Amino acid sequence: MATSEDQNWQANPDAHREDMVEMSTLRHRNKSNGGSEQNEENYQVLSVEQVFESQPVPGWREQLTFRAFVVAFLLAVMFSVIVMKLNLTTGIIPSLNVSAGLLGFFFVRMWTGVLEKCGMLRQPFTRQENTVIQTAVVAAYGLAFSGGFGSYLFGMSSRVANQATGARDAMDIKDPSLGWMIGFMFCVSFIGLFALVPLRKIMIVDYGLIYPSGTATSHLINGFHTPEGAKLAKKQVKTLGKFFAGSFVWGFFQWFFTGGNDCGFTSFPTLGLEAYAQKFYFDFSSTYVGVGMICPYIVNLSVLLGGIISWGLMWPLIDKKKGDWYSDSLPSTSLHGLQGYKVFISIAMILGDGLYNFGKVFSFMFYAIYKSQTGKKSDLPVSDGDDHAMTIVKPVSFDDEKRTRLFLKDQISYYIAIPGYIIVAIISMFTLPFIFKPLKWYYILVAYIGAPVLAFCNAYGCGLTDWSLASTYGKLAIFVIGSWAGSGDGGVVAGLSACGVMMSIVSTAADLMQDFKTGYMTLTSPRSMFVSQVIGTAMGCVVAPCVFWLFYNAFGDIGLSSSDYPAPYAIVYRNMAILGVDGLGTLPKNCLTLCCVFFAASIVINLIKDLAPGKIKQYIPLPMAMAIPFYLGSYFAIDMCIGSLILFIWERVDKVMADQFASAVASGLICGDGLWTLPQSILSLAKINPPICMKFLSRKMNERVDGFISTL
Amino acid sequence: MATSEDQNWQANPDAHREDMVEMSTLRHRNKSNGGSEQNEENYQVLSVEQVFESQPVPGWREQLTFRAFVVAFLLAVMFSVIVMKLNLTTGIIPSLNVSAGLLGFFFVRMWTGVLEKCGMLRQPFTRQENTVIQTAVVAAYGLAFSGGFGSYLFGMSSRVANQATGARDAMDIKDPSLGWMIGFMFCVSFIGLFALVPLRKIMIVDYGLIYPSGTATSHLINGFHTPEGAKLAKKQVKTLGKFFAGSFVWGFFQWFFTGGNDCGFTSFPTLGLEAYAQKFYFDFSSTYVGVGMICPYIVNLSVLLGGIISWGLMWPLIDKKKGDWYSDSLPSTSLHGLQGYKVFISIAMILGDGLYNFGKVFSFMFYAIYKSQTGKKSDLPVSDGDDHAMTIVKPVSFDDEKRTRLFLKDQISYYIAIPGYIIVAIISMFTLPFIFKPLKWYYILVAYIGAPVLAFCNAYGCGLTDWSLASTYGKLAIFVIGSWAGSGDGGVVAGLSACGVMMSIVSTAADLMQDFKTGYMTLTSPRSMFVSQVIGTAMGCVVAPCVFWLFYNAFGDIGLSSSDYPAPYAIVYRNMAILGVDGLGTLPKNCLTLCCVFFAASIVINLIKDLAPGKIKQYIPLPMAMAIPFYLGSYFAIDMCIGSLILFIWERVDKVMADQFASAVASGLICGDGLWTLPQSILSLAKINPPICMKFLSRKMNERVDGFISTL
Repeated sequence: MATSEDQNWQANPDAHREDMVEMSTLRHRNKSNGGSEQNEENYQVLSVEQVFESQPVPGWREQLTFRAFVVAFLLAVMFSVIVMKLNLTTGIIPSLNVSAGLLGFFFVRMWTGVLEKCGMLRQPFTRQENTVIQTAVVAAYGLAFSGGFGSYLFGMSSRVANQATGARDAMDIKDPSLGWMIGFMFCVSFIGLFALVPLRKIMIVDYGLIYPSGTATSHLINGFHTPEGAKLAKKQVKTLGKFFAGSFVWGFFQWFFTGGNDCGFTSFPTLGLEAYAQKFYFDFSSTYVGVGMICPYIVNLSVLLGGIISWGLMWPLIDKKKGDWYSDSLPSTSLHGLQGYKVFISIAMILGDGLYNFGKVFSFMFYAIYKSQTGKKSDLPVSDGDDHAMTIVKPVSFDDEKRTRLFLKDQISYYIAIPGYIIVAIISMFTLPFIFKPLKWYYILVAYIGAPVLAFCNAYGCGLTDWSLASTYGKLAIFVIGSWAGSGDGGVVAGLSACGVMMSIVSTAADLMQDFKTGYMTLTSPRSMFVSQVIGTAMGCVVAPCVFWLFYNAFGDIGLSSSDYPAPYAIVYRNMAILGVDGLGTLPKNCLTLCCVFFAASIVINLIKDLAPGKIKQYIPLPMAMAIPFYLGSYFAIDMCIGSLILFIWERVDKVMADQFASAVASGLICGDGLWTLPQSILSLAKINPPICMKFLSRKMNERVDGFISTL
Repeated sequence: MATSEDQNWQANPDAHREDMVEMSTLRHRNKSNGGSEQNEENYQVLSVEQVFESQPVPGWREQLTFRAFVVAFLLAVMFSVIVMKLNLTTGIIPSLNVSAGLLGFFFVRMWTGVLEKCGMLRQPFTRQENTVIQTAVVAAYGLAFSGGFGSYLFGMSSRVANQATGARDAMDIKDPSLGWMIGFMFCVSFIGLFALVPLRKIMIVDYGLIYPSGTATSHLINGFHTPEGAKLAKKQVKTLGKFFAGSFVWGFFQWFFTGGNDCGFTSFPTLGLEAYAQKFYFDFSSTYVGVGMICPYIVNLSVLLGGIISWGLMWPLIDKKKGDWYSDSLPSTSLHGLQGYKVFISIAMILGDGLYNFGKVFSFMFYAIYKSQTGKKSDLPVSDGDDHAMTIVKPVSFDDEKRTRLFLKDQISYYIAIPGYIIVAIISMFTLPFIFKPLKWYYILVAYIGAPVLAFCNAYGCGLTDWSLASTYGKLAIFVIGSWAGSGDGGVVAGLSACGVMMSIVSTAADLMQDFKTGYMTLTSPRSMFVSQVIGTAMGCVVAPCVFWLFYNAFGDIGLSSSDYPAPYAIVYRNMAILGVDGLGTLPKNCLTLCCVFFAASIVINLIKDLAPGKIKQYIPLPMAMAIPFYLGSYFAIDMCIGSLILFIWERVDKVMADQFASAVASGLICGDGLWTLPQSILSLAKINPPICMKFLSRKMNERVDGFISTL
């Protein structure tokens, strides 16, 4: 199969890089002619897993230690509190994966350090254990977000209903209570884990997707555990450390200038105010510059192209139809207006790409199963299925080979995953309607049939661009199920709870796939990760509702706009559900047509990419990557392209250095910024606000403001 | 003499760098063992003058070409118009030296290119000719600033007098007229050239001062004229070009965000708003980062120390005495208030250092003359006088040796310079009182006796830190002569015209010394430069008043605050003069005491520096460098220290690279920003204002402003 090979080849700069390292080894070998210098140089250019060769990989059971889960529980509680408070204040949740990895390392290191001093240390701390902690923490605190305590779940409450327009029947309201929330969490949270099982191998081994954050975290964890004596690895860790520190300090520095809305570097109209209004600007995010350095060029260019098509062309053109295609009195966030085009066209394009790839993967899988039953062995259907068009032979590096081998060793059998999914789905279908009366069992059935496809889409998109669009898929569920249920029969609660069902799966698919990538690159057994995720999810199902319940009771006014905890997205979600129950007919004019066009375009582009000859193929953009800025804007596309540009120039100037250190630099940039989100969140929770606002005004506005200031 | 040797050693990183290059040559030679690679590597590490070895240095007469002066005249007119318009609008004049060098190159290159195609080119275009053009242009357009058309000269007019408080007698007014202005310019402008002659050798050869802008320009000019085939030189030029472009683009980028007062990166409160109020911030000026990279560490640290002592400690403490030491109802610019302390303490410290060095130089000179008359030969009195304390033997590089030899070859005899100075002084004494009745001949005599010392101070300070403080010395003249003349007898005009006499000399000393540094480093004959400066000054004496006269007649309302040409500094200077005539008694309390303390401290620090043993000596700060931020603030000190820090880290990481490329990087940074001032000035004159204001507000102020904006 041409595409997946091709994507493999494009989408795995790491593999590529390590090959380069080995090539440069050869060159060094040819050049040097004996003595200690030779040994040194040979040693320097070992690949990551060659460096770790001396360390035995513990069996999957040994990777699961008691201390790991104690630390994971403590971190899960801490992160859940942070995420919950952010849920209820601003509603914007940063990714805390890096912090989880880092703090996991420090806590266990402390623990083992104390035990070592007492002479009681039985088991050394390994990078696999580190990864296990991280994935448990991510699984647990992820529920504090995907549980919807600041969005769909709380949006059902009477307090929020009273602030929204209409839909105040008893059927449209479900007030929070600890009992049903924990029950609900248990029902919907585990199913995502089962959905992950088949995707895991496809995304990471077959498609070789990047998962920039996961890759970066793995570099960090590998760096922590690098054995003594590895010269190049040490240099890489040092480089990672420098950029980590730089990125952290840069995040800290930026913070001082964000004392207000639209303040600071993230609102820097780098390309002018008009471009800024269309979300074209460089926002100085070191995370996305790093992501751009890790992602293949074609991903970054696709994202930029998508941004130009949508925010540069389509939205301004559609905006001109205001008053014609849609009412001009709508608020800018209304799905009946421009926002509707953004959300639904974006989803249509993502669905087109996702369905195409989903179909392709499954047809090859069935083809392979068919073949294997007729005698041929084929356990890597996606990579091996395409013999006729394999023009580029991908060189399999030592690292890739070893990682893939270990990653596929401890598989979770389909005989567990598929029945598991079905059993949990059936349990949910029976229990959830008891919790939410308007949520009929057949809605849940439809959701669970559709969910794997959407999970596939989200995991795929996240692997390409690092963006998880869980809430976008949640909105789709609100709309589809809401309009099906209709306004009469508690459609609002049906829509919101369907959103929960969908978000849990889709969000888990993306977040935990990042962790699987980390696991892949740290030789952590997928089986121990699965167990860890199950335990983490179980923790989260109890911890998250409890933390919310604590907030809800401690601060009596949560959800009121006058409160310190306004939970801004709760009312947004409720309003969406209220709009949703009116059905497809309420979409703005031509929106559905455009959705169909982009859905089709997405499939056509994929077809062309698959059928085009090798050379042209690599210049055809990826519809999934193009669709993400449709909704978000191009600013992160510009960050990523700047990352690409840096890498491109670096490769031109010094190819060997770039190949050896680009991942370290990129990981440092991503992880440093990632860790900064932790103190930033804490500062925000402690109500320590930044002192300065860096504001950008047009010259005319500035004159007025200066006039105003002089009157004070 | 220990100090000058020591300063030589510290203050000439270029020489040092080239020695390093030669050291690395040796290393390369030892390493490589034959073949073409060896030749290549040896070739790579030639010093600048070794690269130029193949080009003959033209005689001083040949350096003065007709085409050079035609181009110089055109550029002089262009720059005079720009400077004059800036004089009359904002009053802030950037340095255009780099533009002069660059445009000179392009015009003559065009000229020679056309002639070459016609087969009529007799004389090739050399770097010496390039330098000659530049110095003529700088001499000419410098008069548009130092002529005071936007400050002291226009401050005498009745139009400005009507806007000031008091002093409206006929004696206190002198309205502009083309005739007397040209006469005045001819009287005061040439004397500076004669004062330069003895200083030239002391500053550039004996003290080996840096003159960062001059050094940077010389790198640029050398780069333009580098012969083919010089590998390292080509690489350096390429590096210079890259940083030149980067710095230019950065300047351009910054411009977009300066749409208002206190907007943009130059007002970035990098260290917080409170530090910003005390002028502690990094202002993102690539010029001063480059200057910091060229200046020795001790200069940058001295500047920072001075900033901390003054703006960090003294001014805040004195500010607390407001109402006690001085009236609290004064405007912040009044010399009777805090501004008075800043100006006069700064001058006292500079004078202390300047007088000490002046005395030292002259005592050694007389000692050398005495010795040479008793038989011993000594034509380098300053460097050679100190045999007893010369602990560090300065390695004289190939470049230094050659440059010094050529720089000293075409000397201008003292028998021309000293009588020339005296004759011009006598002519001025007779003619100036005819132009300005209150300006008695003995005021002029005193000014001309004091001027060389102040010119020495300014040229010395400028050589260390790149700052010319001509207007500060002008303020001193206003105060001294004004208070001497008294309020009754036209003291205002006496003070303002004395300011003109003083500023012409002091400003010329610093500006043209920069050019002499460029000349030194491009092997341009000082004699041809002197001739070029004389011709340039003559041009300026006619062009500058004519351009002013044009503006004055074309726009009838120049100098009125409602006008497009408010000439803001004219009224500032007049007000200073009005205050000046009241004499020393009007200085704020303890100001004179503090001045004496700092004057003494400055001499004591110099004495310690001269007497301390070698190791300690280099850690003692330079009072001259410390005094400059007393008046200006620390922001440029922080820029310079960042430049130092970059160089320091670079030297730690890769000493050979840093030694070979630091000058090129620094010159690129300085020249790129320098050239940007030209389009910036043109944009400002064309009234194309930047579109965006990047504003920095405290959080509270931002809330109010947001409130205000939402009401619009």
